[in-house]
Amino acid sequence: MPIKKVAALQVGSAATTQQTLKKILSYESQLVEEKIDLVVIPEATLGGYPKGSTFGSYLGYRLPEGREQYLQYYNQAIEVPNSPEILALETFSKNISATVAIGVIEKGGSSLYCTLVYIDPKLGYVGKHRKLMPTASERLVWGSGDGSTMPVVKSAVGNLGGGICWENYVPLFRYAYYAKGVDVWVAPTVDSREIWQVSMRTIAYEARSFVVSAVQFQPPVADDKTPEGWVKGANLINGGSIIVNPMGEVLAGPLVGKEGLLTAEIDTDDVIRARFDFDPAGHYSRGDVFSLTVNEAPKDVQFVNK
Amino acid sequence: MPIKKVAALQVGSAATTQQTLKKILSYESQLVEEKIDLVVIPEATLGGYPKGSTFGSYLGYRLPEGREQYLQYYNQAIEVPNSPEILALETFSKNISATVAIGVIEKGGSSLYCTLVYIDPKLGYVGKHRKLMPTASERLVWGSGDGSTMPVVKSAVGNLGGGICWENYVPLFRYAYYAKGVDVWVAPTVDSREIWQVSMRTIAYEARSFVVSAVQFQPPVADDKTPEGWVKGANLINGGSIIVNPMGEVLAGPLVGKEGLLTAEIDTDDVIRARFDFDPAGHYSRGDVFSLTVNEAPKDVQFVNK
Amino acid sequence: MPIKKVAALQVGSAATTQQTLKKILSYESQLVEEKIDLVVIPEATLGGYPKGSTFGSYLGYRLPEGREQYLQYYNQAIEVPNSPEILALETFSKNISATVAIGVIEKGGSSLYCTLVYIDPKLGYVGKHRKLMPTASERLVWGSGDGSTMPVVKSAVGNLGGGICWENYVPLFRYAYYAKGVDVWVAPTVDSREIWQVSMRTIAYEARSFVVSAVQFQPPVADDKTPEGWVKGANLINGGSIIVNPMGEVLAGPLVGKEGLLTAEIDTDDVIRARFDFDPAGHYSRGDVFSLTVNEAPKDVQFVNK
Amino acid sequence: MPIKKVAALQVGSAATTQQTLKKILSYESQLVEEKIDLVVIPEATLGGYPKGSTFGSYLGYRLPEGREQYLQYYNQAIEVPNSPEILALETFSKNISATVAIGVIEKGGSSLYCTLVYIDPKLGYVGKHRKLMPTASERLVWGSGDGSTMPVVKSAVGNLGGGICWENYVPLFRYAYYAKGVDVWVAPTVDSREIWQVSMRTIAYEARSFVVSAVQFQPPVADDKTPEGWVKGANLINGGSIIVNPMGEVLAGPLVGKEGLLTAEIDTDDVIRARFDFDPAGHYSRGDVFSLTVNEAPKDVQFVNK
Amino acid sequence: MPIKKVAALQVGSAATTQQTLKKILSYESQLVEEKIDLVVIPEATLGGYPKGSTFGSYLGYRLPEGREQYLQYYNQAIEVPNSPEILALETFSKNISATVAIGVIEKGGSSLYCTLVYIDPKLGYVGKHRKLMPTASERLVWGSGDGSTMPVVKSAVGNLGGGICWENYVPLFRYAYYAKGVDVWVAPTVDSREIWQVSMRTIAYEARSFVVSAVQFQPPVADDKTPEGWVKGANLINGGSIIVNPMGEVLAGPLVGKEGLLTAEIDTDDVIRARFDFDPAGHYSRGDVFSLTVNEAPKDVQFVNK
Amino acid sequence: MPIKKVAALQVGSAATTQQTLKKILSYESQLVEEKIDLVVIPEATLGGYPKGSTFGSYLGYRLPEGREQYLQYYNQAIEVPNSPEILALETFSKNISATVAIGVIEKGGSSLYCTLVYIDPKLGYVGKHRKLMPTASERLVWGSGDGSTMPVVKSAVGNLGGGICWENYVPLFRYAYYAKGVDVWVAPTVDSREIWQVSMRTIAYEARSFVVSAVQFQPPVADDKTPEGWVKGANLINGGSIIVNPMGEVLAGPLVGKEGLLTAEIDTDDVIRARFDFDPAGHYSRGDVFSLTVNEAPKDVQFVNK
Repeated sequence: MPIKKVAALQVGSAATTQQTLKKILSYESQLVEEKIDLVVIPEATLGGYPKGSTFGSYLGYRLPEGREQYLQYYNQAIEVPNSPEILALETFSKNISATVAIGVIEKGGSSLYCTLVYIDPKLGYVGKHRKLMPTASERLVWGSGDGSTMPVVKSAVGNLGGGICWENYVPLFRYAYYAKGVDVWVAPTVDSREIWQVSMRTIAYEARSFVVSAVQFQPPVADDKTPEGWVKGANLINGGSIIVNPMGEVLAGPLVGKEGLLTAEIDTDDVIRARFDFDPAGHYSRGDVFSLTVNEAPKDVQFVNK
Repeated sequence: MPIKKVAALQVGSAATTQQTLKKILSYESQLVEEKIDLVVIPEATLGGYPKGSTFGSYLGYRLPEGREQYLQYYNQAIEVPNSPEILALETFSKNISATVAIGVIEKGGSSLYCTLVYIDPKLGYVGKHRKLMPTASERLVWGSGDGSTMPVVKSAVGNLGGGICWENYVPLFRYAYYAKGVDVWVAPTVDSREIWQVSMRTIAYEARSFVVSAVQFQPPVADDKTPEGWVKGANLINGGSIIVNPMGEVLAGPLVGKEGLLTAEIDTDDVIRARFDFDPAGHYSRGDVFSLTVNEAPKDVQFVNK
Repeated sequence: MPIKKVAALQVGSAATTQQTLKKILSYESQLVEEKIDLVVIPEATLGGYPKGSTFGSYLGYRLPEGREQYLQYYNQAIEVPNSPEILALETFSKNISATVAIGVIEKGGSSLYCTLVYIDPKLGYVGKHRKLMPTASERLVWGSGDGSTMPVVKSAVGNLGGGICWENYVPLFRYAYYAKGVDVWVAPTVDSREIWQVSMRTIAYEARSFVVSAVQFQPPVADDKTPEGWVKGANLINGGSIIVNPMGEVLAGPLVGKEGLLTAEIDTDDVIRARFDFDPAGHYSRGDVFSLTVNEAPKDVQFVNK
Repeated sequence: MPIKKVAALQVGSAATTQQTLKKILSYESQLVEEKIDLVVIPEATLGGYPKGSTFGSYLGYRLPEGREQYLQYYNQAIEVPNSPEILALETFSKNISATVAIGVIEKGGSSLYCTLVYIDPKLGYVGKHRKLMPTASERLVWGSGDGSTMPVVKSAVGNLGGGICWENYVPLFRYAYYAKGVDVWVAPTVDSREIWQVSMRTIAYEARSFVVSAVQFQPPVADDKTPEGWVKGANLINGGSIIVNPMGEVLAGPLVGKEGLLTAEIDTDDVIRARFDFDPAGHYSRGDVFSLTVNEAPKDVQFVNK
Repeated sequence: MPIKKVAALQVGSAATTQQTLKKILSYESQLVEEKIDLVVIPEATLGGYPKGSTFGSYLGYRLPEGREQYLQYYNQAIEVPNSPEILALETFSKNISATVAIGVIEKGGSSLYCTLVYIDPKLGYVGKHRKLMPTASERLVWGSGDGSTMPVVKSAVGNLGGGICWENYVPLFRYAYYAKGVDVWVAPTVDSREIWQVSMRTIAYEARSFVVSAVQFQPPVADDKTPEGWVKGANLINGGSIIVNPMGEVLAGPLVGKEGLLTAEIDTDDVIRARFDFDPAGHYSRGDVFSLTVNEAPKDVQFVNK
Repeated sequence: MPIKKVAALQVGSAATTQQTLKKILSYESQLVEEKIDLVVIPEATLGGYPKGSTFGSYLGYRLPEGREQYLQYYNQAIEVPNSPEILALETFSKNISATVAIGVIEKGGSSLYCTLVYIDPKLGYVGKHRKLMPTASERLVWGSGDGSTMPVVKSAVGNLGGGICWENYVPLFRYAYYAKGVDVWVAPTVDSREIWQVSMRTIAYEARSFVVSAVQFQPPVADDKTPEGWVKGANLINGGSIIVNPMGEVLAGPLVGKEGLLTAEIDTDDVIRARFDFDPAGHYSRGDVFSLTVNEAPKDVQFVNK
């Protein structure tokens, strides 16, 4: 039986990217001990998710302190893949002999992107995916990715693919990945609600894939800093990481209300077993009725000089 | 507040189509009393879902008794829309002043289709949808529909659309319906498992639509007729009808283990409220990356004379 | 000399779309008297621009009252072109014998769009443009248009084209319009700042077109309703409508601090005179170095049935 | 705070290129004292801009004295980068520890080009840009550049790019540079009019970049040499150098009516702050609608010998 | 012997395009009588060539009267092919049973082009060529054509192709036409000098084609209107139309100093005879050494909507 | 004024190569006296141009005496550059302090080539050009050169380049040389006709270069040796050397009917003056429409060992 071990590392961003990185690296010995093959780290962990911020934006105007806040946020973001942070993660991945899939805030020129980075224990950086559609207030600070960053990454547990937070709800996005062939669906997020866990089970069952969803955990802030409309003393992000098998059954989690490492053994053959019943991009597709075109060209300007 | 009332009628097929029809019509007074605007009736209710049958089929050959069984099954199926059964349902719909969405087995020439029929209280028959992809052994007795029967039907509770049983898991099918504009997703089935109910919540949340899922209820058969591998004395189909709002919250059900009428009041404005956050075929789509072509032409032979 | 007269109607949205419409129509006799050929009405006038709103959105969550506010906002939006509001504007345009270019909030399914509608005095509705990229908090409530709604509209004052608010700053958008041939650039907005007026002069000079920019005027709200960070007692939107000739010279305005009709006579031959020096999509373009492809296909799903 | 200092050196061409070079070098001590990081020198300063000349050209014929004048003009032009003038500027740049961006007339075979040369204090010559489209009478004496000379140059104040005089009004040219990533827009010119200064503000605001525009200053010529249609005793080129921040606000200038050095301190982080609102080639671009191809190949003949 | 008759109509533009058109049409009976198969009419005849104009342009500035002059010039230009002037020429061509190749000033948006229009006696308008590179002061008022308007036109005298005025000196332009196969080279111009006639002989000999070059004739203007540097009382354009055979021998002309019709009989087989010795795009080409790519795509913006 | 002096030495081949060489060297003192900077010597002078020969060739066969004649011709040809003849010419060039451009028949293995050799007074042999395409019967005795022998040679009068006899009529060949930058076009030939002189003027004007064309002079042969179809007593090659300036004006010649030295003073700045109007590979080229690739690789066998 091809048994492997996967994990979701439920951590939250610290005050600075350097501190966050340090926190992640502190899990190295535990990950080695548990013989993990894949570890998923939540959305926006490196760079941060300043929950409850408005960046001083109101319909029709913006306050100068919003721009200042953006600059500070920008300064915590990282370059992908050429940056010391990626270098540190490559060493980390090598040391733990596991693929790392981690959510970061990426600098793309002067815009920011919410990005999922894949790092292979032997090859180092192997690909990234920029979130295609930010949600609500995220649209104030993050740009939108395009079809050119939708990699499928090989790993010891099979082909990896997936999306960040609510783009998991975009049916055509998911289908594009099904068609590329995904065995383990990676879903970093900051969504702690029960409906997210329900959705992870459905996606596992629809995709007939394993799902590893890692959610940030953020403790409460001081009462006078609690964002508008948020309950004082409540955790800012409450976790909820979960691991599901291809029949939609929960293997581990949800891990709620605290930081921690969630792990599960998986039998990678279960993907094939489950697709006997239903194979979304295989015997259950109806290519004669539905044909999907995915534009993977990088957008915008092309410089030609030959 | 635009409050309406929807229902799932959890019934099972009787020994004959005539008896089944009679059972359905017997709910008329209750439906009138409850002032229902939409009633959904399970998959294959008229015509029947002979659970546990193999139709004498083995890989490579078929027994003659299988053919006999098919003939009997064919004889219980109905024509759509030109049949006394549809006529009876039109009267029923008019009497209860509600749209009826009902699962039937439809004769299409010598083939059978698993079909969802829509009947309007004023206009009568207004459309049908043939299941696009039968599951497992269903492929022995049912044909596959095509893109020409994917109607959206106007009703007092908003635009209706949806699919039968596992085609609910087909992402491109759902997306095509989202693009056509659906307010209430109709999901007749015979799937009684908990994962189905989880999936209904996810689909409601992804579609930002109401979902009304009606499941058959079939009591146990005599022990000596219990199909191979089934638990003796266990209900053949255990129900599980459910009604969900566009935020993925359960409004009624699941109704498990018995026949019955499941109802819920709905505020139709909730669709707009919920799409403020996420609109799968609106502000959350990425038409520049994903473009879907839906072939709605009827298949089969085309005679061209120009 | 081909002398025509153009106007910017500097009004603000009233409490309801009906009241706003009534206010616009009240200018009919003045417009007739002034023999206006083109009147431009600001961004989002029909439907409204709820300045300072956050729609209950914070990074990572949304308050229920935000969804409620969205529903109310949705209910004030209009259908384009099939709605009583467009019908009323068609009559208005006919009565004043002038082309009307008006900013509205348009219902597109469950999403909203910030749309510029063109109405011809003889032909009625002739086209619309959906804002391509909402700014900041607008991204919480408006979807993004695509290349399929970028019409050039013929009128008595020449070809009309243009964009809404900050999409005026998108160079490729402007260039696409230059290439289609625009004589009068229409720029409805809610931006009252001096840099906007400077930009209108530059765009006129770059395009070698007339520019008619109409800005909303919104008086202050009660002190206790003043949005966060806004000065109490200050006008919510301070106007600033302006009319510029193709040499970048101001013909009328900016009209600041009050509602009103801003008008200017124009010599339509000035477009040709000015392009003698510089013709952005003509003798000054470098098609051998820069080639722009504009995708005018409507996005997303295509239903094919032939 | 990353504070730097930029300057526009508002000088005019002297009678010969040697004298002009001498005049530029005479500013060395002042530039050192002011600790300038970038100095921009106007269009055509080395080589000259013989304002008001017609080069004996009339529609349909040319006078021999026009050819003689061209020869003299040609002899004042310089080779780039292999010439004593560039060598002298490299030393100058090194001595003042600042990047120099200077407008020159460049010999390219027998044709002349209006060229912007970049010199780095450590690396010396680092790139040049040939004006893509001469204006009006310039077309009689200057050839047109192509896409192969559109460099972005790194400097202590960030990435430099830009264009010469009216090519600043070419939207696709500007956008190509935005896509390459420009922090400080360099705009040498001979345009002294107020609309130029307005345009510099708009370009800064559109690009969300700093703008340093250096304009020549040329005093009047003797009355009997005043060119046709020019006011006797008026300055030939009146200056107007200006420095603008990424929000379109004027930091220094316009310096009008005299030679001189215009300087401003800049906070280079302002680029990021400003792009929070608007990032023309980032979160505000619509690559799905507009795709620009920039041909950077050198034109014409290719000699292949392998 | 395949004997045909070709003509150059040496006329000049009158005060207005209407008067010029009238003058051309007045030759109808003479052309019929002479049984002409092809008549070539000079460069810019319809629209005019305002010899000696500067359009108020000086290096670095433009006078307002220059723009006014441009507007008047623009108003005399014509649309191609949708204009009454082209319609009139189609009738003319039909009446004289001859192909007409005529130089016009064409409106292309707000820019002007110097264009060669081909009209077939049976098919009407069949193609146009926009001058690729205006000369000297022409660059102030005319745009540049591109590779998309380089047609070869079939006629009773063989394949027609050619260029306007000095683009006849562009070797790659000529070669592109040789490669397309030209039997009669059409060369409308306003160049009256002897070197032009010498060049026409060389081009005929190089191309091994007939050449028909039609030159405008413009009488002197009043002494006080004589342009700068021109001899008072001298003809503004002195004619010089010429017809040459494929061996470079003059068949008719040059017709100097007066308006008139120049005609010659030609033996169309002479093209083949002459190419026995030398065939520039045939047995004398060296495709292994020289390969020419001609970009015939229309430049600039492409609107895609499928 | 940069005044130089150029010459065409109009001589004919003598009975043997040695005698021809002697004849050339006999002009040494005259060349020194006249202070010539460049002397051009006709096509095939060393080696000979046996006018009127058929080399016994008929379509489909050849006579043995033809082969014998070829052998004798081969024996008069020279090696380039390793031969006593080249050595003698190097001394000659040094003595007269002038660049020599001379037409020779070159041995290339067993084939012969019609070659133009360049000799510098200081550097000696500096390059050669093999005629790319022999004309008519020349194809019986000469091979074709390739792109590897198209040098541009620096000299006291500027850059030299050019071609032999009718390859002067090959537009792409000329253009390749224009792109390399030629100031003085060298055209050795045996073509005595008037059309050649006309063509030299046109090429000078097109290239905006000086042209020095040297033509052989061959007196009549005895009547009984007059080749078939030639006029008895007529000169075999009648000269016609000519020197032209960049405006197409004849500076000297044509020298007709006798041997002799043709000389002219030239102002090398005239190249720049003339290119003010027209620069074929500079401001008049259209690289966006026409792109030429020149294959300069030597043909033949390539031995590859990597």
